[in-house]
Amino acid sequence: MSEHRELFPLVGVDVALFSVVDERLKVLLVKRAREPEAKRWALPGGMLKPHLDPSLAGTARRMLADKVAVELPHLEEVGTYSGPDRDPRGWSVTVLFYALLPLDKIGAVVRNKVEAVDWADAASPGHRLAFDHAEQLSAAVKKLRAKVADDALPLHLLPDKFTLTQLQTVAEVILGHPVDKSSFRRRLKTSKDLVVLDEFVRGAQRPAQLFKASEGFSF
Amino acid sequence: MSEHRELFPLVGVDVALFSVVDERLKVLLVKRAREPEAKRWALPGGMLKPHLDPSLAGTARRMLADKVAVELPHLEEVGTYSGPDRDPRGWSVTVLFYALLPLDKIGAVVRNKVEAVDWADAASPGHRLAFDHAEQLSAAVKKLRAKVADDALPLHLLPDKFTLTQLQTVAEVILGHPVDKSSFRRRLKTSKDLVVLDEFVRGAQRPAQLFKASEGFSF
Repeated sequence: MSEHRELFPLVGVDVALFSVVDERLKVLLVKRAREPEAKRWALPGGMLKPHLDPSLAGTARRMLADKVAVELPHLEEVGTYSGPDRDPRGWSVTVLFYALLPLDKIGAVVRNKVEAVDWADAASPGHRLAFDHAEQLSAAVKKLRAKVADDALPLHLLPDKFTLTQLQTVAEVILGHPVDKSSFRRRLKTSKDLVVLDEFVRGAQRPAQLFKASEGFSF
Repeated sequence: MSEHRELFPLVGVDVALFSVVDERLKVLLVKRAREPEAKRWALPGGMLKPHLDPSLAGTARRMLADKVAVELPHLEEVGTYSGPDRDPRGWSVTVLFYALLPLDKIGAVVRNKVEAVDWADAASPGHRLAFDHAEQLSAAVKKLRAKVADDALPLHLLPDKFTLTQLQTVAEVILGHPVDKSSFRRRLKTSKDLVVLDEFVRGAQRPAQLFKASEGFSF
């Protein structure tokens, strides 16, 4: 196959899988088992398999199910990284996606074909990342922040039932700064993405109403 | 090469090249000379040549310079389209970019390796487009509108020197609706993307000041 490297680029995907843990925005990193860049931390990624994948989003879903046993509710495309020098195996194209994983699904992450997994701080992961993954991670964080700043509700990060305080906390964790409570609540009142439940949990002062995401809400 | 089709996808680019003509948002279409989809109108596109291209943005620049003799000041990535069925030649990936071309550069568009070129209405091009290009064009228009709605100034669409009225008109043409003049002017006053010139043109009531884009302005 190597004589075709000049004609056919490598095509694959990388995924920045975000979650909120202890009120920090975290990203899933994997320690690479194989060369190139063996033993280095990286965003989980994989190569397109045209005979298996219906699309590159399909490649991303297959790869994540395979490597870390995660089934994703949604994927958002961030951008494409391409060129002759970003992977020592040859001219390569990777499409970067991000996804949000609800807190209560984190327990399901296992490792397969990777040395280790780590939920690292998304803003400063504390590892030198393989390939151009540091640049990719920055771009994914920036896109996620822009989306939440632009009024999207990060409901994929919440448990099935949540309070508005939990929702505001997750928005603040992503944005990296406090959000004005009254304007945030005003925005929520007109949102079609939220469904009020007839259930409450004990709050600091009074019972807090529970909400869930509406079916097919958009992010 | 065909026996490798199962292993190696086709990789290419498409470009939605926008301009404003007669106060309408236009997009450049080319009539395909060759199969597949010969004689059909399409966004200009082309295949990656790994030995020539430093990146897929490089593929887009080379292809546009080659097919329609246009040199682009900037390219913005819209998204990726991929799958086994979108091109009859095999599993394919295309990265869609959009670009804005200043009014006074339109004269330079010539055709090469295409049957014909047309500046079609971006919102309703009046041709049935090849492949998934109708979907791609919609996505590019949506992304351009979102960017201008989000306060980016479409200075790439203006001549080298322009009035604020011309700038507002171009923003309105892209957005498809009128913009409040006083809030638009307020926004421009704080923009680092504009440079005031000591030149004026005759206006309807009084002389109108001319502006230019600042060096390295962002869009």
